Formats: sequence, C-alpha cells, structure tokens
Amino acid sequence: MHYTQIKKVLDAVKTGTLSPEDAAEKLKHLPYEDLSFAKLDHHRHLRQGVPEVIFAAGKTEKQVLLIAQAMYKRSGRFLITRASEKVYRSLKIKGAEFHAASGIIAVGSDTKKSGNVLVLTAGTSDIPVAEEAAVTAMFLGSSVHTVYDVGVAGLHRLMDNRDAFKKARVIIVVAGMEGALPSVVGGMTDRPIIAVPTSIGYGTSFGGLTALFAMLNSCVPGIAVMNIDNGFGAGCLAHRINTVR
Amino acid sequence: MHYTQIKKVLDAVKTGTLSPEDAAEKLKHLPYEDLSFAKLDHHRHLRQGVPEVIFAAGKTEKQVLLIAQAMYKRSGRFLITRASEKVYRSLKIKGAEFHAASGIIAVGSDTKKSGNVLVLTAGTSDIPVAEEAAVTAMFLGSSVHTVYDVGVAGLHRLMDNRDAFKKARVIIVVAGMEGALPSVVGGMTDRPIIAVPTSIGYGTSFGGLTALFAMLNSCVPGIAVMNIDNGFGAGCLAHRINTVR
Amino acid sequence: MHYTQIKKVLDAVKTGTLSPEDAAEKLKHLPYEDLSFAKLDHHRHLRQGVPEVIFAAGKTEKQVLLIAQAMYKRSGRFLITRASEKVYRSLKIKGAEFHAASGIIAVGSDTKKSGNVLVLTAGTSDIPVAEEAAVTAMFLGSSVHTVYDVGVAGLHRLMDNRDAFKKARVIIVVAGMEGALPSVVGGMTDRPIIAVPTSIGYGTSFGGLTALFAMLNSCVPGIAVMNIDNGFGAGCLAHRINTVR
Amino acid sequence: MHYTQIKKVLDAVKTGTLSPEDAAEKLKHLPYEDLSFAKLDHHRHLRQGVPEVIFAAGKTEKQVLLIAQAMYKRSGRFLITRASEKVYRSLKIKGAEFHAASGIIAVGSDTKKSGNVLVLTAGTSDIPVAEEAAVTAMFLGSSVHTVYDVGVAGLHRLMDNRDAFKKARVIIVVAGMEGALPSVVGGMTDRPIIAVPTSIGYGTSFGGLTALFAMLNSCVPGIAVMNIDNGFGAGCLAHRINTVR
Amino acid sequence: MHYTQIKKVLDAVKTGTLSPEDAAEKLKHLPYEDLSFAKLDHHRHLRQGVPEVIFAAGKTEKQVLLIAQAMYKRSGRFLITRASEKVYRSLKIKGAEFHAASGIIAVGSDTKKSGNVLVLTAGTSDIPVAEEAAVTAMFLGSSVHTVYDVGVAGLHRLMDNRDAFKKARVIIVVAGMEGALPSVVGGMTDRPIIAVPTSIGYGTSFGGLTALFAMLNSCVPGIAVMNIDNGFGAGCLAHRINTVR
Amino acid sequence: MHYTQIKKVLDAVKTGTLSPEDAAEKLKHLPYEDLSFAKLDHHRHLRQGVPEVIFAAGKTEKQVLLIAQAMYKRSGRFLITRASEKVYRSLKIKGAEFHAASGIIAVGSDTKKSGNVLVLTAGTSDIPVAEEAAVTAMFLGSSVHTVYDVGVAGLHRLMDNRDAFKKARVIIVVAGMEGALPSVVGGMTDRPIIAVPTSIGYGTSFGGLTALFAMLNSCVPGIAVMNIDNGFGAGCLAHRINTVR
Amino acid sequence: MHYTQIKKVLDAVKTGTLSPEDAAEKLKHLPYEDLSFAKLDHHRHLRQGVPEVIFAAGKTEKQVLLIAQAMYKRSGRFLITRASEKVYRSLKIKGAEFHAASGIIAVGSDTKKSGNVLVLTAGTSDIPVAEEAAVTAMFLGSSVHTVYDVGVAGLHRLMDNRDAFKKARVIIVVAGMEGALPSVVGGMTDRPIIAVPTSIGYGTSFGGLTALFAMLNSCVPGIAVMNIDNGFGAGCLAHRINTVR
Amino acid sequence: MHYTQIKKVLDAVKTGTLSPEDAAEKLKHLPYEDLSFAKLDHHRHLRQGVPEVIFAAGKTEKQVLLIAQAMYKRSGRFLITRASEKVYRSLKIKGAEFHAASGIIAVGSDTKKSGNVLVLTAGTSDIPVAEEAAVTAMFLGSSVHTVYDVGVAGLHRLMDNRDAFKKARVIIVVAGMEGALPSVVGGMTDRPIIAVPTSIGYGTSFGGLTALFAMLNSCVPGIAVMNIDNGFGAGCLAHRINTVR
Repeated sequence: MHYTQIKKVLDAVKTGTLSPEDAAEKLKHLPYEDLSFAKLDHHRHLRQGVPEVIFAAGKTEKQVLLIAQAMYKRSGRFLITRASEKVYRSLKIKGAEFHAASGIIAVGSDTKKSGNVLVLTAGTSDIPVAEEAAVTAMFLGSSVHTVYDVGVAGLHRLMDNRDAFKKARVIIVVAGMEGALPSVVGGMTDRPIIAVPTSIGYGTSFGGLTALFAMLNSCVPGIAVMNIDNGFGAGCLAHRINTVR
Repeated sequence: MHYTQIKKVLDAVKTGTLSPEDAAEKLKHLPYEDLSFAKLDHHRHLRQGVPEVIFAAGKTEKQVLLIAQAMYKRSGRFLITRASEKVYRSLKIKGAEFHAASGIIAVGSDTKKSGNVLVLTAGTSDIPVAEEAAVTAMFLGSSVHTVYDVGVAGLHRLMDNRDAFKKARVIIVVAGMEGALPSVVGGMTDRPIIAVPTSIGYGTSFGGLTALFAMLNSCVPGIAVMNIDNGFGAGCLAHRINTVR
Repeated sequence: MHYTQIKKVLDAVKTGTLSPEDAAEKLKHLPYEDLSFAKLDHHRHLRQGVPEVIFAAGKTEKQVLLIAQAMYKRSGRFLITRASEKVYRSLKIKGAEFHAASGIIAVGSDTKKSGNVLVLTAGTSDIPVAEEAAVTAMFLGSSVHTVYDVGVAGLHRLMDNRDAFKKARVIIVVAGMEGALPSVVGGMTDRPIIAVPTSIGYGTSFGGLTALFAMLNSCVPGIAVMNIDNGFGAGCLAHRINTVR
Repeated sequence: MHYTQIKKVLDAVKTGTLSPEDAAEKLKHLPYEDLSFAKLDHHRHLRQGVPEVIFAAGKTEKQVLLIAQAMYKRSGRFLITRASEKVYRSLKIKGAEFHAASGIIAVGSDTKKSGNVLVLTAGTSDIPVAEEAAVTAMFLGSSVHTVYDVGVAGLHRLMDNRDAFKKARVIIVVAGMEGALPSVVGGMTDRPIIAVPTSIGYGTSFGGLTALFAMLNSCVPGIAVMNIDNGFGAGCLAHRINTVR
Repeated sequence: MHYTQIKKVLDAVKTGTLSPEDAAEKLKHLPYEDLSFAKLDHHRHLRQGVPEVIFAAGKTEKQVLLIAQAMYKRSGRFLITRASEKVYRSLKIKGAEFHAASGIIAVGSDTKKSGNVLVLTAGTSDIPVAEEAAVTAMFLGSSVHTVYDVGVAGLHRLMDNRDAFKKARVIIVVAGMEGALPSVVGGMTDRPIIAVPTSIGYGTSFGGLTALFAMLNSCVPGIAVMNIDNGFGAGCLAHRINTVR
Repeated sequence: MHYTQIKKVLDAVKTGTLSPEDAAEKLKHLPYEDLSFAKLDHHRHLRQGVPEVIFAAGKTEKQVLLIAQAMYKRSGRFLITRASEKVYRSLKIKGAEFHAASGIIAVGSDTKKSGNVLVLTAGTSDIPVAEEAAVTAMFLGSSVHTVYDVGVAGLHRLMDNRDAFKKARVIIVVAGMEGALPSVVGGMTDRPIIAVPTSIGYGTSFGGLTALFAMLNSCVPGIAVMNIDNGFGAGCLAHRINTVR
Repeated sequence: MHYTQIKKVLDAVKTGTLSPEDAAEKLKHLPYEDLSFAKLDHHRHLRQGVPEVIFAAGKTEKQVLLIAQAMYKRSGRFLITRASEKVYRSLKIKGAEFHAASGIIAVGSDTKKSGNVLVLTAGTSDIPVAEEAAVTAMFLGSSVHTVYDVGVAGLHRLMDNRDAFKKARVIIVVAGMEGALPSVVGGMTDRPIIAVPTSIGYGTSFGGLTALFAMLNSCVPGIAVMNIDNGFGAGCLAHRINTVR
Repeated sequence: MHYTQIKKVLDAVKTGTLSPEDAAEKLKHLPYEDLSFAKLDHHRHLRQGVPEVIFAAGKTEKQVLLIAQAMYKRSGRFLITRASEKVYRSLKIKGAEFHAASGIIAVGSDTKKSGNVLVLTAGTSDIPVAEEAAVTAMFLGSSVHTVYDVGVAGLHRLMDNRDAFKKARVIIVVAGMEGALPSVVGGMTDRPIIAVPTSIGYGTSFGGLTALFAMLNSCVPGIAVMNIDNGFGAGCLAHRINTVR
C-alpha cells in the first residue's frame, strides 16, 4: 500500500468522509491480503520502496488476473512482467499499457519522473531486456534515456554517445555473448553501473552464464551484477540508486 | 591522479612556485606511467571516481612494491588488496596501515567521511570479506558502520539492529553458505543493497557459488551482486552510490 | 500388498470363505507380479511402509494403465504421479480422483488420518509441488495442513502463521529461486523440516539447482532435502516421520 | 539457553537464593550475547531443539575459544565440530571430550539417551562422517548404534545386520562413491532414512557430488538427503525425528 | 564389406561366373565408397568386427536413405539406429524390420546366434535403451536374453533371476536415476558387466549424468560404462566380448 | 564500407560525376548509420577486414530485413547467417543466394578468389557447419575446397585425401562427438589448423562441449579453436590467415 | 576366499589332516570377517572372480595394515592400490612387491598367466595409470604386454605396433588430454577396447573429464570406459574379458 | 629431425665424409626413437613445422632429462615448457637458456627471425603466459614484439599502442578475468588474432574458464582461441600463421 494511499485514508477520516469503521476495514489489509494461493503484500512499497510486482511466468493466467485485480483495487496501480499479450487482453483494466518488446503490463506509472537513468545495449538482440529495465524504472518514477547497439566491436559508436554518460546518475549496461561492454563503459565514467547479462549467444555463451561471469569478473571494480535477462531487477536497483537520499 | 593533485600543480604554476616546465613534466604522466610490466593509470580517479588499486594476488612482491612506490610518488596515496604482512613490511612507507583481517594496505585514506554505508555479515567467518568492503569504502571517503553475525538462523539478532538500516544510505550484506541474508534484509528496507557471497561453507556451497546464485535469484528485486569474496568491489560500489550526485 | 489385505486372505481361509488353494494363488503374488515390462512389488507397503507408486513420466500410457489395473486388482488402491488428465480419463476406475494442480491420480486413500503435516510454500508458483506432497501424505494416512505464499520478502506473512508450526509434527517447506525459506522456518521451530526445491526461477536458478544447493547449505542444521520438484518424496518422508514408532 | 537452565534461574528466585536483579541480569542474555565478532544465540535450544553449535572451520582459533567459553559459562555445555586437536588442547575445560575420528569436541552431552538411531556406512573410509553423526545424536540425547562397512558389493554383510533395522527409529546411511547403499537399505525397511554422501572416491565422484545426486534420485521414495560429509546435520535431524512428539 | 562377401567375389572369379574385370570393379570399393556427403566404409566389418552403422539422428532423411541403399547394394545388410517409423516406410527394402521401442531398422541380421548376452533393466522406462542393445547384439550374431524391471528398491525381483546370471557370458545392465543396479549385480557375478546409464529421472538426474557417474564410481571394480542411452554401443561391446577369441 | 566503395566516391568527385555535397552526404555515414535499434558499422570492412554481418538468430525478421536493406544500399553486399528460408523470401534483393544447408544468405560475394582454404568434416552430420565456413570464406574472397566424412574411425579415408593438405594454406576441421579429427590432421601437416566443434552427439557430448574441450586440449600444439557450431567464425579466420600480408 | 583355498580345506578334512571342527572354524569366515571398521569379504573371489582389494587412499595407515594382515592370513595373497612406499615398508610381509610407478603392493600374484592383454598409452605421463592396469591384470592371472607413448600426434608410432593388436584378446588404451587414442585404435581392430582417461592435461582437460567424455562419445561403437585414472578397474575388466568362458 | 639435418646427412654421403651404412643408421631414426617410456618423433618438425617439444609437467625429472638429451643429440635443439629451475640446473647443456617468468628452457633457437608477432596482455599478472608465447614464437623463428598491461579499464593505454597493430602480421592477446581485451583489439584491426585466456582472477573466473568462454563468444568474428594459460600453443600458431606460404 502506497504511503499516499494510507494518508488519504487517514485524511478522509479526519475530514469525516470516511467512518472510522470503514477506515479500519481498509487498513487491516495493511499486513497482507490473503487470496489463499497468494498473500498480497500491499505495504511493500512503504517498506521496500518498490511495490509488489507480478511475475507472470509460472503462474496460471487466472492467478495473474486475480492478483492484478486485487492489487488494482487497493492501490490503482500494478506491474506485470513476463506477460503475454493474451493476459493483457483478458485484463480489461482501463489505462493498462502493454509493452510488447519486454512483455510488461503497467497500470499507474508514476507520472513525476526524477533523476536520470541511462540504458545501453551491446546489440540489437539485447533490446527486450533493456526495455524491461527502462519500463520498470519509468514506472517507479525515474527519468530514463536509452542508447542501443553500441557493442565493443565498434567502439566509435560508444565514444559518440559519451555525453549521455555525464548526464546520467546511474547506467544500466545490457549485453550478451562475451559481456565486455560494462567493463569498457566502467572505464569511462564514475557513475554506478548495473550490468545485466542476456541469454543472447550460442555454444559456450551457456544461455548468458558467460556474460554473467565476465561481468562479475570485470577489471573495473564495483559493477553491480543482475541475474541473466533480469531487466526488471536492474530497473528496480537503478531507481533505488537514482532516488537515494 | 587525483583532481586536487592536478589543481595543486596548476595553482603552483599560477603562484610561481612551480616552473611551467616542471608542471609539464608532472602532467605528462596524465595518460599513464609505463613501468613496462605495468602501465599506471594515474588519472583513473578523475575518470572513474576510484583510483587504480593494486590487486596483490598474482603479482610478484617486487612488482607490487614498484607499482606502490610509483603511485605513492604521484599522488601520495594507494590501496593494496589481498596483500600479505610480508609485503607490508617490505613497503616502508610512512603512514601505511595494514588491516590484517582483510589483507589491505592503505596509505592516504580520505579523511573527510560522508554519507553512511552499513556492512552486515551472516556469520563470524564472513568478517574478512566484510572488512575488505568496509576499509575500501572508508579509504574512498565514506562513513561506514558494521554489524556482524546476524544470520537468518536467529532472526531476532537482525531485528534488534533494524535502526541501523534506517540510518544507512547503502547496505552491504556479506554471507556464505545458502546466502539468504540479503533477501531477508531486502524485505525490510528501501535502501540499495549490495550482496557479497563468500566462500564460506563446504560440499555444495561450491566455494561460494551457491550463495552467489541464491543472491542473483533473490525474491527481493534489485539486489546488486558482486563476485565471490569481492569485498573490495562492494566497497567501491557502495562508495559510488553513497556519493551519487 | 497391504497388511490388511494379507490378513483378509488368511481370515477368509479361517472362516472357510476361501479355499486354501485360492488363498495360495493369491499369496503367491507376494514376491511380485510379472507383467514382463514391469514387475509389481505388491508387498512393498509391508516392507517399506509406502506402497509401490506409478511414476507416469517416461512410461507409455498403455504401460501406466496396465500397471494401475494390476495394482488395483490386488489391493484396491494405487497412486499415479506426474499423470496427465488424458491418462485419468482412460483409466475408468471408480473412485479415482484426479488432482489437476499436481497431476496425481489416487484411488483408495487411507481414510484414517493421523498426526499433522504442515506444508508451506514461498510463492504461488510453488503450489503444484506442494500439492503433490500434500496429496501423497494424505493418501498414505497423514493429516495435512497447508499455508501458501509466505516467502521471505514479506516475513510478516510467515510470522502470522507461526501457530501452525507448533501444531505440526513435521513441516514441508517448498521454495524455488534462492530457496531461503527453509532456513528462516528452521530458525523458528524444533520440528523436523523437509525442504523441497522447485524449478521456479530463471537464469542462475538453474531449474531449481540453486534452491537445492542453498537448502543443503542451510545455516540451520538438520534440514532434510529432496530432489527438485519432488513433492511426492517429501510426502512419503513426512508420512514416515509423522508415523514413526 | 537450555530450558532447564531458565527454570533453574526462576526456581532460584522463587526460593530466594537469587535476587530478582541477578536473575534479570542472567535472563537479559536470552536474546543473544554480543561478542562483536559473534552474537551467541543462547536460547536456540529452546527454539530449535538443538543448541547453537560452533563450526570451527573458517574461524580463527581465538574466535572458537572465546565463543566456547562464553557458551560454557551460560549453559555448561557446547559442541565444536571440525576442530583440530590443537583447539582441544587450548580449550582447557574440564569434561571436554575430543573425538579424533570426527574432529568433534563435546562438553555436557545429554546423559539420558532415548529412542534408537542406527548409523550405517558403505565403507571404512566413510567412518569419520558417520562418527560425526553418531557423536552429535548422542550429545543431543539419542541412543545410537553403528554398523560399518556394509556396502552393496557384498550384500550378505548388510543382510546379516537386518535385525538392527527393526530396532531403529531412524537410520542414517553414510556412503561415498556411487552412493547406492541408501536405496538398497530403503528397499528393506519402513523407517525414515537419512542419507549422507561422503567425499570418498576420485575422478567422477566429484568430491561426493555423484553420491549426493544419486541419493537425491533414489528409486526408493522419501529419503532425506544431507550436504556432502555433513554428519553433524544428519545427527541433528536423526535426533529431531527420534524425539518427534 | 563382410568377409564372406569378399570370399564370394573371389570364388565367383575362380568358378568363372565373374570376370576378373568385374571382380576388380567390386573390390576397388574396398577402401570406401564416396557419396560426397558420406564415405561408406564397407570393409569396417572386416577391420572392426562390426559393420558401419547408420546413426539417423542428425542426418536428413534423404541422406539416411541414400546411405542405406548403398550399403544394402554392397552387402545386403545394414542397421539404422535412432530412426523414425517415417524413415522405415520410405526405405522400401524387403526384409527390413522396424523395432519401434528402440527405433532400429535392421536388414540382414546374422542368423547364426552364439554365446549368451543377458540384458537387465532397473525399471520399465529403461526398456527402449535395453531393446537397442538387445537388437544390436542379435543383429551382430549374439544370442540374447532379457529381464526387465528388477531395480534395487525390490531386491527379491533380482534375486529370483540369479540363474540367468550364470548362463550369461556378458551382462548388460541398463538403469537411470541413481544407477545403482550395476553395482548390486556386479557384487553377485564374475561375468563382465556393461553398464548403460539412461536419461530416466528428473532434477539432479541431469538427463542421465548422475547414473553415468555413479556407474563410473561403482564399488565393484571393472564395470564397463557406456555413454547415456547408448544401447547400441553396449550391444556392440557385448558382442565383441561374447565372441572374443 | 568497402575500401573500393570509398575510392569510387572520391573518384566520382574528381571526375565531376558527383558533387562534393553529395559525396559528403555519402561519407558522413562512415562512422555508423543509426537505425535506433541497430547502429550499422559500414566501415568495419576497412577496419577489420571483414564487413559487418547480420546474425539473424535473436533478431526479429523485420529487424533483419531493415538492416540488410540499409547495408545493401551502402555497399551492395551483405551476409546473413542463421537465416530461415522465410527471411530469404521476404528479402527480394536481386542476386541474393540462399545456402539452405548452412542457412546463409549472401549478396555480393567477392568474385576474385585467392589462396586456398581446405574444409574437412568428420561425419555427414557436420556438413551444415562446414558449409557455413566454406560459404563465408568464399564470400570474403578465398578459394575453398571441401572433403567430407573422413572421421578417425576409418583413417584410410583421410589418408586418401592427404594431397589436399599440401595444396591448402589453411585447414578448417569440423567435428562433433569426441572431436579427435583436428589432432590427427594436425599430426600430418604444417598448415595452420582451425578446429570447429559441432553439437553433433548425445549424452556426454554436451551439445558440442566435449568436442570443444578435446580440441582445446589437442596434443598437437597451436590448433585454433572456435565456439561450437561457429562455421562463420572459422570462415572469417581462415580468410584472414589466407590473406595475411 | 579363493576357490582353491576352500578346496584345500575340504581335502584336508577328507584326508584327515584337519578336524571337522577346525574346518568349520575356517569356513565360518566365508560370509565375511568383521574387523568392526571393515568387514572383509573373503569369498569375493569366488563370487566376483576378483578378490577384495584394498584401496589405500582415504584409509589410515593402521587400517590398511590390519586389513592386509587379515587378508594375508586367510588367503596368502592381497593387492593394495594407491599405496605409499611408507605403507609398503610398514607391511613387513614376505614376498610383497611394491610397484613404485603405480603405487601398488602385491602379494601372491597368480603365477599361471593366460590370454593376452595389451596396454597402450598416448604419452609418457600416462604410464603410472597404465602400470596400475598392467600389474592388476597380471596379479589376477592375465598375460600382459605394454606399448607406451604412441599418441595420435605421430600416428606412425602406432602403426608400427599394429602387430601387437592382433595378438591381444583385449586392449587397454590409456590417454589424457583430448583422449583421442581409443577411437583411432578402435578403428583398426576388432578386439574389445577398454579406454582409461587420465588426469594428464591442464585448463579445459578438467582433470581428465574431457578425455573421459571424449571416450564415451567415440565414433567407434562399443568402447568400454573407466573412471578417470582407474587403471585398477581396467585391469579387472580386462582380466574378466580375457578369461571369459 | 630438422630438414637441414637430413640434408646434411645426405650431403655427407655425397661428399664421401659419411659411409652409406652410417647414414642409414642415422636415418633409420626417422620414424621415431624408442626410449620405451617415450617414443621421440624426430621428424615432427618436417611434418608439422614445429619440432616435438617436452612438456615437463607430469613427467619425472629423469624422464625430462633423458628425452632432452636424446633430442639434443639428434638435432642440437629442443624446447622444454613448464620446467622448474631445478631441471634447468640438472640439464648441463651448453647454450641452454632458462626463461624464469615462463619456465621455458630453450636450446638452439632459430637465429633468423622473420615476420612480426605482437603479444599484448591485459594485466601484469598475465605476463608469464605471454612470455611463454613470445619465447616459443622466437624459438621457432618469428620476430616478436610485446606490449603489456593495456587492459580495457584504461582504453587510452591501448589506443596509444595502435601503431604496433599495423606492423604485426599476427596478434596474440593474453587476458584473464572477464577476457574482454581480444574483442576490443579485434574491433580495431584486420590481423588474425589469437586469444589466450589466463587463470588470473578468482571466484567466478573459474581458473580462466570465464575468460575462455568470453573469448569463444567474442562479438568480433574469427578470433582463434587457445586453452587456458596455453602460451606455448599460441606461440606455435602465431609462428605457423606468420610463416604461412
């Protein structure tokens, strides 16, 4: 449950538009709401700075819809990741946006954007993961800028975009194959870097493991590494850093 | 080469205490200084926010000493990680401190500390890695606070220290074995979390791989993960986030 | 062959309703019944406390049906795991129940339930494995209680259900991703804990291996670990412990 | 802190031999005792049924001794695993026993033994792990019986000891190499079985991984599996099952 | 090219039914026959005791048919493994037999069977691999006997078939999951044992790797191990041993 | 952008058939052309000796077509690897050739062939990878010769083709399964050898990893190894060596 | 217990030189002799064709000596593998031979040699494993011939020794690195081949795993594969095949 | 046996300074010289362009010395890799040079250097492997140039040395950790590149595997990859390419 949601409840009590009984009813959901197959953690936003998010993969369509509706009812917003267009169509919630490249469904993105998150990719095939990161960070309230296909085989493409580095507060670098881009970017900036390995590649790319391990072994110290294809996590971390107090 | 170092050179020229010729001599090292077996990147601090650091493991003692002396001569400060006490004794540089638990030798720590980095460990055996992180962040100029041995087998020890979470701008969580602590901490705070897996454990801990993979798979989104036992990297990232502008 | 089955045969001989010849015929199956492609171990229940169970995956539908019919004929009960609804429909045995979430077909569940097995899951996606465990333990004669979606990202959901721990004789904890829940539960109870890793997750979850290894490395000593997604095994072990004499 | 310890404190208050102030002093340690590098969880016995145990590997000798002394002072008992004889000699605590085969130091074993735990090994080289399990279970209060070197290459040695199976409430089976013994034992008994893989073997035994994976894949359902060489965990679990209420 | 084929050619020359020119034409194929995409090694039987065999997986249907026809033309016999029924139907060669369980197509099996190869399986799901071994050995001229579903969870099923051990010259043991059967069989006989791991199992069975490694680590010395699911190789080796001179 | 392309532009300016303005327009693409989802590196040929190539796997069909058209417009030539026939049909560019075995689409192959590259395969199933190498090297301007199915099980097939070794400047050896062919070839020649492991095999071939590792461990020193199934890379390297100045 | 040993006992009873009581005493050891830490399986030779052998690695020196003495007392012969010279010196048993290259101690080798086992190595460093195989097979009663350092980098060395192939009944091929030799030998003979991978190599030889996997994937069908460095197992299998009835 | 060696023999016959008998004696060693534990392949240089080289690791000191002496006697030159200084001291051959950094002993380096091989390293710790490559290529007759410590964290160090690229015919790039340098160098040159991963790094560098896999997955096509730390192989390949005809 969003802080402003709670405040609204309390204000309504104060101004008399909500009876204390009804307020209590609303607030008792604070700990969590039990759907039996899922326990919705409505005050996660308050506690962790990021609301509970629905990871669609591994859940039945019906479970996703029921959770989304329960969350929408409480807070008017939610984010579903790794969703199909079919789920989006069944959802029927006004204002829901489907981001096809990343498979994200978003309702109630924070409209006030702050800070500056830069998202880079090494290649064209890394874009879906980059989009997952970008959409997530924007949903949470970060301003985001993207530059795609600037891998190390043609460094001049990267050099040309160095101005973008200086404007960013955090940089997300998305790369598959040998995962070398974060090291090269890291050698050129003092901004915190979040490296996201992708499953792009074949043979000994091992579905992204090689890029992951390369990033964990970067000769540039202090690069934050995410799980393979985890654009969503990168978006969350970038937002946390972007809004660090 | 530290920004203030460059400025001092230029100021000295302005005030006449340094001839333009000598200043040129000093500044021409800006790109790097070539020791043949090593090319010292003196302006890394300017470019990356973190000065070049000497990773002693894998270098001969003689190489470490020559690099340290060259760096000391330029900037009056350096950091050596994974060093033995023997190296420290051979070094003979005034003001050098040897941190035995983590094997760090530091000269010229930034004396002005800012922000607040919290370092937690799951167990007693994780302390050397935590100390590497803490000493590094302090060297770079961050204020650091530590709480050790608060693993998930006794959650009350962690709960008791929740106040420390609120005061921190960034939290480093160091854990071996099943690596569960970052997830539990992540469920209780909105601060950026840096997880450092350690090689503590046996059998299927695989020298820290299990903790690493567990951290990359945390159900709390957006945890930054480091290589196994990489306290140094965690200290660098924490400092970058702690001082993000 | 169930102990009560054997006793019934012998009683029938005693009371004269079964000729010694027919009894012999029935009992000679004691060692096993040879279907050529399968040798049914009818007295496994007597020997191991758990009857032979049909693992459908990897067998042809025809093999599954023939084995099930042979077992039904001997003892009036059987359990098929990892079965499709199609197998269930072809089976045509009265009283057979199909548990869709877990893919179990059960006939002749023990109606007298004893003891108390608690089944927890970290997330919604872990439910199918948890159901496999719960249905198995109930089939064997254990009383079972379930609490789902109480993962470590929101500990208050778990804390709220602590009463259930005290009532249980054994606790099954089902979790994917980083597999941290068994450690946290293990820190709060003195009951035997059975941890079941699930294949939920992606990237470095390695289809459940990371959860498995995390559980084997738990900082809480003495957690029993099962193969990935092996709800059936967890149900068997829970029942064995629940009825230990 | 042991339940009887707490009760003794309270009784002493009741009978007047302890002032309420002193009792408070003693009990305030209930949550944990902070040695800075370690936070001792004195009431773990109360909560988990097993007291906190000192895992010596990875700790400095000094840390082990300080923790042991602090624990001894509170409860008069402790267990150190993976300890060297050198630690034992430095300890100088009366009544401390050093079990050389398993590297365990025990003080204050529970003298009242109950139930029956059977410990089997496949070979001679598996004995140290089996001893770790046996000593642990005995320390916690279980009655233990051992039969060694009954691997599957000579089944008659196992058959000869089948009587021991019937007397046991729980069976610990310790095996390296191909790890086949738990399956064979599991086919002959209805007791809960705890399988402990050992690092005995070479080449593709992978330091015990092959035995571990074989045990997790046993065709006998419901075998509890431990980490490699984790005799201590097996002892804890066996005791928990042996004393299940 | 089969020895008897060569002899027939030479005999024909001797008796005048074949001109020396035509004989030369036939024999010049001895080294190999070049189909450009394949070089058929017709005298492999002479050299290795086993004719060249067509492994269908990874070849186009057209390639398989062309190779089969070329081989049939030379020697009147061939074996295709891992073939689909579709390939069999396209083949249109008289006398070709399709073994559905194993996916083998055989033409010209050696009709004189000698020696005795015993093939055992641990479970029902291992039968396809066992059939591949059995059909191969029979094709090459070995007498074969099979006993299925005698895994270690019910040892009495194995004990009941011990007579078969004594009659065999070689024993092939096919098993998935924990792969324990070869060790148990090996403890009961002095015949050479060929162990074939199968991909039956899930989770940490790793598609047969665990069974493979278990077999390589058998506590019974001298067990011959094959690649996963390699029934064909086991059949070849069994035949070589069965006919060793 | 091809060197001759640049020269043509400059010549056209010199001869007056192109205005300096138009020439500038054409040349300003030198650094790269930005399609937003892709940054085309038109002067890669100049810099690396090999033009930028479109790896179709992982890109949408639409992305592949747009990149191909942009490249075609600049230089009149391109190479697409791992493409389906469907992409080829949508392409509609005159002179485009589709190589079905390897999935390559080529436009504008260099017509002047020089040097001599020999491509060998161990088996029939390795041909698609070999074709990828051969087509690539020919596209870049190398003369190529192929000999297929000369694996080590029938060494005489290889011996028969030894003359081809002497004529080659570079030899590409493509092999799956145990990957032994490069070692055997390497023992017979002084030409640089490029080994390409293929994913042909099953079980412990691990999709080509075993062949890869075998090639990296060859007892013949100095064999160049490529990623699994990377015929394209082998073709590039062979061409670079074939044309080394 | 050796068959001739038993017969001697029975003959002695028949001839009156041994009382039935003493004979019973001797024969009651038939099942096994219990040393508590080891249960000696004296009739393993009768059952498996190979006597129980002492694998010294992982046992204490004292255990090895006690087992050796007990075995010597019963049968006058034993084999210890992976033993140090120190164990040999402590043994003090007349006629014991120490084979330094392989670390074998043998007493009572079968003096009647039969059949013919050929042992080949790829390199000089593979000799210790080859010697373990050779000494074992000789101890068991096989005639053995060795040819070392005939790896595939210089095939003429192998070709030169082809006569040895024809004289052998079984061929053991010992190789590390890429493990290609068994395939090449297998292409040249119809004898059963036993491949033994060694841990010779570095980097991606993975301590012998690459050679092991290469051998399991040989393009020559039906090669028997042993665990890494398992010369002993190869010797046992070779002897079983060499003496197959 | 070196070509010039053979020619000298024949010339000596022609000029009468050597009797045909003695010449035959000398030449009969052509196939190989049998030391029993090693078969020296003296004409490997003729056949493969690189003489047989002694890999000291895994051989006894005595074996190394005997092989070296035999080779020295035939051709007056040899190369020993991975040798200790102790071996060098025992060797006592005039003109032998010990390269301490790489552990190479060389006698009879080719004095006529041709072509140009450039050797780069990412860091200081990679120098020993680079030296192994450099010394090997020089021994074989290549001209070699080295530039060390130019890793991607400070690209300006690499840019500064770009002139060296243009002068080289082949470039060897040696790097550990994330292994990114070959990709970056590959993006800047059209010369054949040989990438050598080193075991420098910790945690998920897996002893060089991560660098190896990164190099195999380079986004720059056609990079030749060597086994981990295999400087010797890189030197051989570089020389073969450098002298390609």
